Amino acid sequence: MGRDLRICLVGDSFVAGVGDARCLGWAGRLGALAHAEGLPLTAYNLGVRRQTSADILGRWLPECEQRLTSGTDARVVLSFGVNDSTHEDGVARVALEESAANLTKLLGQAAERGWPVLMVGPPPVDDLAQNARTAELDARFAECCANAGVPYVRVHRALRESAVWMREVRAGDGAHPGADGYDVLAELIAPHWREWLGR
Amino acid sequence: MGRDLRICLVGDSFVAGVGDARCLGWAGRLGALAHAEGLPLTAYNLGVRRQTSADILGRWLPECEQRLTSGTDARVVLSFGVNDSTHEDGVARVALEESAANLTKLLGQAAERGWPVLMVGPPPVDDLAQNARTAELDARFAECCANAGVPYVRVHRALRESAVWMREVRAGDGAHPGADGYDVLAELIAPHWREWLGR
Repeated sequence: MGRDLRICLVGDSFVAGVGDARCLGWAGRLGALAHAEGLPLTAYNLGVRRQTSADILGRWLPECEQRLTSGTDARVVLSFGVNDSTHEDGVARVALEESAANLTKLLGQAAERGWPVLMVGPPPVDDLAQNARTAELDARFAECCANAGVPYVRVHRALRESAVWMREVRAGDGAHPGADGYDVLAELIAPHWREWLGR
Repeated sequence: MGRDLRICLVGDSFVAGVGDARCLGWAGRLGALAHAEGLPLTAYNLGVRRQTSADILGRWLPECEQRLTSGTDARVVLSFGVNDSTHEDGVARVALEESAANLTKLLGQAAERGWPVLMVGPPPVDDLAQNARTAELDARFAECCANAGVPYVRVHRALRESAVWMREVRAGDGAHPGADGYDVLAELIAPHWREWLGR
């Protein structure tokens, strides 16, 4: 028996891979990459559409407790934020400081259980004003993670500069890319993912 | 806006796709097939290793309620049973009639919420005695589903006769196949999946 690695990938529709005709998303691509590099793992995709940090805080723990069996190398990857920064009736669905507080609380709950965490920041969509809000949230999330000693992967700017990502988002539903966009995102995360798995 | 199809695939490690280096399992393969055939869907994989019908009954509803938003074409695919028929200290982890009662209760809960269900029967592993017990459970599950008007896909015998499935299971951990085995299983389910999606 080698290492028994079990990872819950918790977050929103980008984690779930909405828009990807291959049904992998970036989460599935990173899982397949680990297999290909000789590290078989059990990956549980717990991304849910439309969910904010508040929604995720409300359900992540029982879902992970079902899956992260004691005695295994149990870990968590987080990614959310775009739904928080979405405006409804002119205000963000979750205010910036509330998003930060939700993340900090969630990181505390993970630390109590001894689950190492990797966080991936929120990507851009086809809406400049929202992207500006998301970039602010991204910076705030990076601070929260730094305070908790959790690695944080920033992808927002690189994806805004990715012609593939932005073209697929526009061609899709305005928020989610297709398979090529998820390839780009998975490649951005891959080096951080490898380093984190090696810890 | 076309049809907004959201499907939770609820079950055990075979649903999760354990052993598949492509990180799709049969669930991911069927999702990709639907996309390829012009039916994009949101598929949530809720397979969890080692879980019996009792474990699944205990957690499936809150997990699906997070994901099956009202106003969508919300559906559920179920598959479990091999963990029920696993012997521990000489007895099945869940007795046959208890497994059947758990399934019937679960189908009732789905019907109350108006979620159409498709069930896939439990596959064989590399253990003849257990396969005999699983085949009995398979027949009992088929009855429960017939009583509830739920389509049930039997795969047990076809997989026992599949050289690819049985070879990969033996070469793996004794229970789970690799990518080729999941291809075989997905192909067995595909016609029933298509018909069910068309309802």
